[in-house]
Amino acid sequence: MIPGPIGFHPKVLRALTIQNIGHMASEFAESFSKVLRYLREIVFVNGEYQPIVLAGSGTLAMEASVSNLLNENSRVLVVATGVFGRRFVELLSKYPVKIDVLECEPGDIVDVEKVREKLETGNYDILTVTHVDTSTSVRYPIEEIGKHLQSTNTLLVVDGVCSVAGEEIRMKDWNIDVLLTGSQKALGVPPGLAVVWLSPKALERLEETKSKLAPYYVDFTKWIPVMKGYEEGKPKYFATPAVNLILALKVSLELILGEGLENVFKRHRVLAEAFRAGVKSLGLDLVVKDEEHAASTVTGVVLPENVDLKSFRSEMLKRNVVVAGGLIPDLKYFRVGHMGPVNSNDIIATIAAIERSLKTLGYDVEVGAGTSEAQEILWKHGF
Amino acid sequence: MIPGPIGFHPKVLRALTIQNIGHMASEFAESFSKVLRYLREIVFVNGEYQPIVLAGSGTLAMEASVSNLLNENSRVLVVATGVFGRRFVELLSKYPVKIDVLECEPGDIVDVEKVREKLETGNYDILTVTHVDTSTSVRYPIEEIGKHLQSTNTLLVVDGVCSVAGEEIRMKDWNIDVLLTGSQKALGVPPGLAVVWLSPKALERLEETKSKLAPYYVDFTKWIPVMKGYEEGKPKYFATPAVNLILALKVSLELILGEGLENVFKRHRVLAEAFRAGVKSLGLDLVVKDEEHAASTVTGVVLPENVDLKSFRSEMLKRNVVVAGGLIPDLKYFRVGHMGPVNSNDIIATIAAIERSLKTLGYDVEVGAGTSEAQEILWKHGF
Amino acid sequence: MIPGPIGFHPKVLRALTIQNIGHMASEFAESFSKVLRYLREIVFVNGEYQPIVLAGSGTLAMEASVSNLLNENSRVLVVATGVFGRRFVELLSKYPVKIDVLECEPGDIVDVEKVREKLETGNYDILTVTHVDTSTSVRYPIEEIGKHLQSTNTLLVVDGVCSVAGEEIRMKDWNIDVLLTGSQKALGVPPGLAVVWLSPKALERLEETKSKLAPYYVDFTKWIPVMKGYEEGKPKYFATPAVNLILALKVSLELILGEGLENVFKRHRVLAEAFRAGVKSLGLDLVVKDEEHAASTVTGVVLPENVDLKSFRSEMLKRNVVVAGGLIPDLKYFRVGHMGPVNSNDIIATIAAIERSLKTLGYDVEVGAGTSEAQEILWKHGF
Amino acid sequence: MIPGPIGFHPKVLRALTIQNIGHMASEFAESFSKVLRYLREIVFVNGEYQPIVLAGSGTLAMEASVSNLLNENSRVLVVATGVFGRRFVELLSKYPVKIDVLECEPGDIVDVEKVREKLETGNYDILTVTHVDTSTSVRYPIEEIGKHLQSTNTLLVVDGVCSVAGEEIRMKDWNIDVLLTGSQKALGVPPGLAVVWLSPKALERLEETKSKLAPYYVDFTKWIPVMKGYEEGKPKYFATPAVNLILALKVSLELILGEGLENVFKRHRVLAEAFRAGVKSLGLDLVVKDEEHAASTVTGVVLPENVDLKSFRSEMLKRNVVVAGGLIPDLKYFRVGHMGPVNSNDIIATIAAIERSLKTLGYDVEVGAGTSEAQEILWKHGF
Repeated sequence: MIPGPIGFHPKVLRALTIQNIGHMASEFAESFSKVLRYLREIVFVNGEYQPIVLAGSGTLAMEASVSNLLNENSRVLVVATGVFGRRFVELLSKYPVKIDVLECEPGDIVDVEKVREKLETGNYDILTVTHVDTSTSVRYPIEEIGKHLQSTNTLLVVDGVCSVAGEEIRMKDWNIDVLLTGSQKALGVPPGLAVVWLSPKALERLEETKSKLAPYYVDFTKWIPVMKGYEEGKPKYFATPAVNLILALKVSLELILGEGLENVFKRHRVLAEAFRAGVKSLGLDLVVKDEEHAASTVTGVVLPENVDLKSFRSEMLKRNVVVAGGLIPDLKYFRVGHMGPVNSNDIIATIAAIERSLKTLGYDVEVGAGTSEAQEILWKHGF
Repeated sequence: MIPGPIGFHPKVLRALTIQNIGHMASEFAESFSKVLRYLREIVFVNGEYQPIVLAGSGTLAMEASVSNLLNENSRVLVVATGVFGRRFVELLSKYPVKIDVLECEPGDIVDVEKVREKLETGNYDILTVTHVDTSTSVRYPIEEIGKHLQSTNTLLVVDGVCSVAGEEIRMKDWNIDVLLTGSQKALGVPPGLAVVWLSPKALERLEETKSKLAPYYVDFTKWIPVMKGYEEGKPKYFATPAVNLILALKVSLELILGEGLENVFKRHRVLAEAFRAGVKSLGLDLVVKDEEHAASTVTGVVLPENVDLKSFRSEMLKRNVVVAGGLIPDLKYFRVGHMGPVNSNDIIATIAAIERSLKTLGYDVEVGAGTSEAQEILWKHGF
Repeated sequence: MIPGPIGFHPKVLRALTIQNIGHMASEFAESFSKVLRYLREIVFVNGEYQPIVLAGSGTLAMEASVSNLLNENSRVLVVATGVFGRRFVELLSKYPVKIDVLECEPGDIVDVEKVREKLETGNYDILTVTHVDTSTSVRYPIEEIGKHLQSTNTLLVVDGVCSVAGEEIRMKDWNIDVLLTGSQKALGVPPGLAVVWLSPKALERLEETKSKLAPYYVDFTKWIPVMKGYEEGKPKYFATPAVNLILALKVSLELILGEGLENVFKRHRVLAEAFRAGVKSLGLDLVVKDEEHAASTVTGVVLPENVDLKSFRSEMLKRNVVVAGGLIPDLKYFRVGHMGPVNSNDIIATIAAIERSLKTLGYDVEVGAGTSEAQEILWKHGF
Repeated sequence: MIPGPIGFHPKVLRALTIQNIGHMASEFAESFSKVLRYLREIVFVNGEYQPIVLAGSGTLAMEASVSNLLNENSRVLVVATGVFGRRFVELLSKYPVKIDVLECEPGDIVDVEKVREKLETGNYDILTVTHVDTSTSVRYPIEEIGKHLQSTNTLLVVDGVCSVAGEEIRMKDWNIDVLLTGSQKALGVPPGLAVVWLSPKALERLEETKSKLAPYYVDFTKWIPVMKGYEEGKPKYFATPAVNLILALKVSLELILGEGLENVFKRHRVLAEAFRAGVKSLGLDLVVKDEEHAASTVTGVVLPENVDLKSFRSEMLKRNVVVAGGLIPDLKYFRVGHMGPVNSNDIIATIAAIERSLKTLGYDVEVGAGTSEAQEILWKHGF
């Protein structure tokens, strides 16, 4: 139950073992073509938007997303609600650009009004926002930012690593220009794929920058013709794509679209709500301060004072549940991912394991309290 | 969560896909040899006992077990606590033998004393007992029967389809002469393998009967040399064994022995107790009348009057839990299997799904009551 | 390259790993229903013919095929061209019937005229013929026998273990009443499934015999309603079917029908011809005496005097080719299976490995001679 | 039979499906630790050399290899024998460095003496050489270059994408400072992993450059502590590694080391020689001009004038063999990969398919001529 790599659907894993399909085979091109169309579908955009799939991790997607759109002396505003937001600062420091940052306390969000004000003063070329920061499980209200950028020159770059396919993202309606993610989270595919979507506005900027500052491997001016080639069933080559992972991504996207996007988002929302209700009823605090901004894909939970993280994770492991540790220094918390092919059984079992683990470690908890609370929520929503 | 085929361990499923190993290959002989040794280990017998693995289902194992040991006019006593006990009567009717039956109400066991009395009067060649009858989830106290047969000519044939590798069976200590099972239950392998163990006393009887009444395909006088051949690494041929399933059985047995038999049996026992406690606290009745005789591998639960079986199973399916219907006419109940690689998470999630399904169907139940009760039991046993 | 278990298609192996589908699930029923319809298609029969799929090996299919149709004192004529033909005699000796046998030298066939004569004199209830005897690689001209039985009471039982899906079999046109096979040969599925088809005439006989002499596990009067249930999407239970193998069989049959039966049969025919031409050009003799009767699925090849079978198989294994030894005493030969998803590459590579192995063992052979000859044949047929 | 992605060993593919192992799990760390040690073994280096495994393709490995070691105004000499050699020029143009190139005609190598002379005049910081250029199948005699650099400040960067694990590479003995490859060629793992090894001299340079010019995602100063962490069993995080591919790499490396490196290299060498002999005997020309420089992993073959590439590839596909087209403009040739778990059967079958395809397309060829020639070579070497 860690926030990625998640537990994968067996059909997805089976697709990984497909043998003897080269990257130039028409059979592969056909699958890749579908992948590109499905990728548009899950973020509600049309053919004017260009998805790009690279072999690499989410961090590669972050670098690709900004580096291709920078000019020397570009001005970038980074909105950071956690470790992965701040990663943009570190990353951008490698480039000859001017960076401003808006930050907040862990668990908070950066006030939307403050972002708007900053935007007005800054004449920014790029604004980066982390949709859900995996480190804090805070979800940023992207949609409230996008509309302010419509008539500006600022490109909105959204890190959706921990949200795409788990949280609703209406890329076009919300005026997102660059969206990025990795395969191993709500997309439901083992790690190794970086995905980026570009809006028409981003594509225009690209014609300007000509990807001059981008590293060779992620140069979009090289990759876009390749993607278009695959989409038209005419494989082109720049660097060998991760064939088997892409075949697995096809299967995973078909499972997601087969369930129905509305159902997928609702499932994530309800499971997250049930999980939060469960752990709160055990007297535990969430990392996120205002539940309105709680992610549907991951939840950070503060551990009681007398419970040690290492012992807790080890007790959970004995109960066949793996939870992740925290990423914010000086805060003792654990993180539970609930995204991809996750269901109510996983949520109840995880809360139950938390109850028994905490009680075993001496925390005064009534076993059954958390599961009962979560059961109420699940039932109320028809789960 | 049906009582077989169960959910299989991924390692077991992976072993199914091993390619290009023929039944005469030394690599296969090596694996099969281990399988035979492991099979002895899990029922606590030594090399004097002969395990036999056939391609077929548990019903084939039943027929093989008795038919090989019959003479014309053999006398057989059948102790039946459910559908699978009575199946021996139907099966034996195909053979020229005399059959007596001791039966009981569904959920009950046939009184051990009554069996002993019958045995004394009958001069039986064979006594068949179903260890756990999958239809009723009743476990018969085999060990109380075996000792009475030690100095007699009666062979004790035990149907362990729903118990081997889930319930403790000490074949030698309990004086069991023939034990039989299928692969798809607690052995943890997809359906298609029938397994039989023979005691020295059964092997002696075989020398007498020469398998004369046995069907050709299950003729033990043909199969025993084949099993001995594989065990010694010298493949012999009678009929093609189910190679891939046997390779999967090897992996499953290694997982079982790796966990430790005592741990495996305790796990089944505790999970069954927690499950029963959970459903009882929802006001539901068990099929088994005396919990002392409740199986650790499967539990039959009577549905409330106002809840329809079909609707209930369908509500459970919506919650990603498959439960089995009943097999006894005029009794409205469902069955939950909890054997093989099952753990506390499965139990809690199943109870939770039962709670929500019943409430959705109008049964007055407090969601959380069952999970809380089960949590207490699990925690008490250190789970 | 042994004559079963063969090398399986990866898609078939992947299907084996499908998880969490019980034998009563509608998803399984749907697949099984398709399997039954496909099974009719590959032997060119309509809905009046009943296929039955059991967990077990080909030998079980043999026993099921005859035992269900016997009455006490039935008269059976066995036509045997090898080990598997004679197996019917051994098998039938278990039953209270009268058996006559027609045999021949290994590599020969029993003269069709002789069979006809015998049939006229004997008033036989059943005639058994092995289509391709795996031990000799001889194919019997079934079609010349069937027409003589049309207006008689004799049922024609054909052992198609080594032919179904590799050799053309027109069950209806050829008046075959019972056809049987196993999964691990040209059907292309790991061992563990026995398949039987019954003609209307066989079904009539069944109403007479009521399967009285059949073992319990293979009692067709039990299984036919189960098969009909699955075909109609309403699972019924008698004994647990080998779920995963049946799901794999579905995939394999779809591959076979997808290729087209005519193409499948032609492929087997041409590859067999090329293989025979290849080994003959090395100076080796075939076991089959008249190539008109050579099977398309398997070929027995006599080893040169100075070459030892064990050393030869070991040299072949070093070259990554497994060949089978012989089954006829006093004849030093090896057998190569070429059925299922086999192609011209396998044939050429096998001949090449034979050449190098023989030369290494001191047999005077020109490497390249066999492959050249086989190449000519393949090319001539457009392969 | 394309030069990557190759046909993978089933054990490698099975490892891809391992479920529920996170990148911070100790089970994963244990496997990754072994991978790092195995990676040293296959290029004959000790613990002073640092291997780095990234999610990405071979092109990412190329960029990572040079960018981390550059300073502004670094001088780089590129030795190019084909498309992938020249790719370094394109790649380096993204960086503020001075690039010189030595090129040659396709099929030739750049004269070693010329390289030495150039090195003496140039005071180069980095020399890049492509060991085997997949586009031409030419292997460069790296070992003759390395010794000249020992006492200089020039780092030798070797692109081993198409050679590592197929051709012998003695990284330490040959004074290679940076070696790079991708997973999908002779390493035998589906595409998606980039691997780089650094010598002590390269690690020293890194301390100087501090990876200042490297893209964020490939910054070795970030990755080296992560690799060291995994090697010591203490997972550290920078970006999510491609867990499943790394687990598969472990299996593939164990297969390679299990076969023995000397055997692996010999197998590649002999198969390549047999393949070349086979196609030459059909009257076809190799792309490589001097066979002394022919790669053991891939062979480019010039097509006859009257044979069209597209038709040829399509005829080959009908015979179940996929060959790659060429990458050099104005040269009509195809490429056959023979690396990874390839064996003599693949070689013979491929040549046989080439013969029949060419003959079908009207090229005057004697079928069997090529296979005969290859058979001689294979036999001569004990294959």
